[in-house]
Amino acid sequence: MPKPEVLTPQAADFPQWYQDVLAKAELAETGPVRGTMVIRPYGYAMWEKMQAEMDARIKAAGVRNAYFPLFIPESYFRREAEHVEGFSPELAIVTHGGGKKLEEPVVVRPTSETVIDAFMAKWVQSYRDLPLLLNQWANVVRWEMRPRLFLRGTEFLWQEGHTAHATEQDAHRFALKVLNDIYADFMVEILAIPVVLGRKTQRERFAGATTTWTAEAMMRDGKALQMGTSHELGQGFAKAFGITFSDEEGRQSLCWQTSWGASTRLMGALVMAHGDDQGLRLPPRVAPVQVVVLAVRTQDGAGEAAAGIAESLRRAGHRVELDTRTDLSWGRRVVGWELRGAPVRLEVGPRDLAEGKVVLCRRDSNSKVPVALGQVDAEVARALEEAQSALLSEARRYLEDHTSSVASLEEAEEAAQTGFGVLAGSALAGDSGEATLNEAGVTIRALQRKDGSLPGTYEDLSDLVAVVARAY
Amino acid sequence: MPKPEVLTPQAADFPQWYQDVLAKAELAETGPVRGTMVIRPYGYAMWEKMQAEMDARIKAAGVRNAYFPLFIPESYFRREAEHVEGFSPELAIVTHGGGKKLEEPVVVRPTSETVIDAFMAKWVQSYRDLPLLLNQWANVVRWEMRPRLFLRGTEFLWQEGHTAHATEQDAHRFALKVLNDIYADFMVEILAIPVVLGRKTQRERFAGATTTWTAEAMMRDGKALQMGTSHELGQGFAKAFGITFSDEEGRQSLCWQTSWGASTRLMGALVMAHGDDQGLRLPPRVAPVQVVVLAVRTQDGAGEAAAGIAESLRRAGHRVELDTRTDLSWGRRVVGWELRGAPVRLEVGPRDLAEGKVVLCRRDSNSKVPVALGQVDAEVARALEEAQSALLSEARRYLEDHTSSVASLEEAEEAAQTGFGVLAGSALAGDSGEATLNEAGVTIRALQRKDGSLPGTYEDLSDLVAVVARAY
Repeated sequence: MPKPEVLTPQAADFPQWYQDVLAKAELAETGPVRGTMVIRPYGYAMWEKMQAEMDARIKAAGVRNAYFPLFIPESYFRREAEHVEGFSPELAIVTHGGGKKLEEPVVVRPTSETVIDAFMAKWVQSYRDLPLLLNQWANVVRWEMRPRLFLRGTEFLWQEGHTAHATEQDAHRFALKVLNDIYADFMVEILAIPVVLGRKTQRERFAGATTTWTAEAMMRDGKALQMGTSHELGQGFAKAFGITFSDEEGRQSLCWQTSWGASTRLMGALVMAHGDDQGLRLPPRVAPVQVVVLAVRTQDGAGEAAAGIAESLRRAGHRVELDTRTDLSWGRRVVGWELRGAPVRLEVGPRDLAEGKVVLCRRDSNSKVPVALGQVDAEVARALEEAQSALLSEARRYLEDHTSSVASLEEAEEAAQTGFGVLAGSALAGDSGEATLNEAGVTIRALQRKDGSLPGTYEDLSDLVAVVARAY
Repeated sequence: MPKPEVLTPQAADFPQWYQDVLAKAELAETGPVRGTMVIRPYGYAMWEKMQAEMDARIKAAGVRNAYFPLFIPESYFRREAEHVEGFSPELAIVTHGGGKKLEEPVVVRPTSETVIDAFMAKWVQSYRDLPLLLNQWANVVRWEMRPRLFLRGTEFLWQEGHTAHATEQDAHRFALKVLNDIYADFMVEILAIPVVLGRKTQRERFAGATTTWTAEAMMRDGKALQMGTSHELGQGFAKAFGITFSDEEGRQSLCWQTSWGASTRLMGALVMAHGDDQGLRLPPRVAPVQVVVLAVRTQDGAGEAAAGIAESLRRAGHRVELDTRTDLSWGRRVVGWELRGAPVRLEVGPRDLAEGKVVLCRRDSNSKVPVALGQVDAEVARALEEAQSALLSEARRYLEDHTSSVASLEEAEEAAQTGFGVLAGSALAGDSGEATLNEAGVTIRALQRKDGSLPGTYEDLSDLVAVVARAY
């Protein structure tokens, strides 16, 4: 019997499939103010796992968490010219507070360089205070005319790191450490999403940065999603806010800075990089429910057996949910857990129990195998490990299969209809080639060396390749 | 040699002492927009520990975390009459977004009943959906004319729980469960701060609540600080937002609700409930650094010994910092760690090492005892446990010593100059007695039964006592 179709198939309408999944798996809904979102408990539990994993990596890099105000004086915002130019069209402005018109309107932070730098200027005095490595978990606001849940929103949640260094080289090294050791490691090892790392073009870089480094991933419709960016800010903000230090000889110098962020956009990535026509497929390391134990019925010992299995798996350290909702139809329960992407499902029924077994179903491969009762703990542990690596392998294969070398702008546009194109930098003919691509809705996601490795900060376009795609 | 005085003594000027501690222990600073704050890394690390402990209790109560938008349409806010009346004077209003004047201004959330209830109305259909137990960790904004760091701010961080129930009794039970099992347990067991639990008077209750339950603590200047409140909302918001459910017989009914919050105000409580003239005294369970290992010098094996001790303590699961900053004066290092309130300090110097020992100093009692090298792990574990309970005992004693039974409004005002007064409810002569106290800067913090236990929701004032105090 074919399962009822709960989602628009990906092939029919990928954006509609995405909306369907978010709604039916109860991940998120749109909020009442345009572009805002409500993250529902199941979605928020995924985000909490992501936060914990990123936070551990952020702390391991020597960064300390802090919290800076939501409201920034408009005047702060105007101090760095490129920055204000980039963000002005997206700002939300508070003009009234406590029943009165404010003397100076305040900006609701779209990002926090300006306010954090004002404090770094106070805290950094000597070379001994450097590097100063800070991060905050916060909400930010960027007024969005074409919002999409998790991908582009008026308000989103993120972490934003802000650092100050004594030398350009140290800032450079740290920006790349963030890209590699925090972002790429988390995305590959936990989210099971392979990432294309590279440098942004001048057109695509962050407003106020000298260099932007990026991690890009491919969604299952062939489009790119920017997963996280790490910026070298040079000395522009340091100059605007007066972040200076005295070196060992007592000379005053401006700091070199970085900033870097990853957001609830990663929720969208997780959905679109692994999901299929049945719904989410969550990598076990980020799944709020790793194993669901379904009692086929509660009589005849199946209820007790299911509860015992769930308890044993919990003690083994897995995140387990016991589902005894036998008042719902079996099909609806199975479809529901497939939709929510629980990596392993154990079906516990009287007939199998009589034969001393249960059925283990893997969401990633849709495989179903009988498992002897004495082997459940071991087989579940193995299934979770295998599911984690299988999803990564599958996503890697998808990325490879949908990436092609191209030799001209026309071929690049063509390749971007189904995936990524890799174009020799020399074929771009500089900024005008990029502009041509942009007009066709195609952007340069990342510049890399020809072997796929990261280029230097100033390495010339003619020695590099450009990864081009349509993007979210 | 007397230690240099780094802080204004508490007895000289308690509010100035508080400001000094926040600045010198690097907990927080005021932000550029009036009433906003910057939480510095050491302070934020304390908040992260508090969050983790509260969050575990919130989840253990069956509540699920979610996230709702920062921006709330002004029209939502107007739907519950008492609520809008209570919060209107404190609202921050966004009038411009994306470079344009908004058609409908939006409110920056001061609390989230209105937006959360709009979604509960969609999600609650049947009795099977109840109770619906949600919480969010978020920033909120209440325009504040007389801000004080952590205590009253234009922006602060908090958790806000919002629940919907089928019956008034279930909502009542849950509001008290929050008060007892989440708030009081966390405050006593982790923060080592004893709390006075009770019901708020009508005057003091939350705007829109039928009953507010509170946990109040005494600071070391005898003033009260409201630590957390749990509100029964009756059916007012449910009616305003249409949160109805069909019961087992298919009849439609309005839900009964609760909401409850605790905020970064608890940071202020932690400082003022335990701190002394040398600075913070942190309970080990919430201290970012539980043990600091100070190498007196790095030569003669003291540096290696200190590092070894620190590593061993880390492996034992403690939060440890190794301090080898021998370029700073010894006095400055010791004073610095006293200021930051690290519960246990180990002084590791060549002379003691030669005798096979180190010195263990406890911050709570200022005790210093030699400890044999082989006993360090065991003695540190014991010292941390003892420090945790000693701080609670001391705070309990302080609360008892500064609480007195009073027989009239005059005596109540008098008692409130140095602590809490406990006044028979009958002596209040209803609302007019409360108004008289309020004019003298004294408020009723909590109504209790005469034996100190929680009163019923509707228990009459004449059967109760009122705990009165000056308050933050």
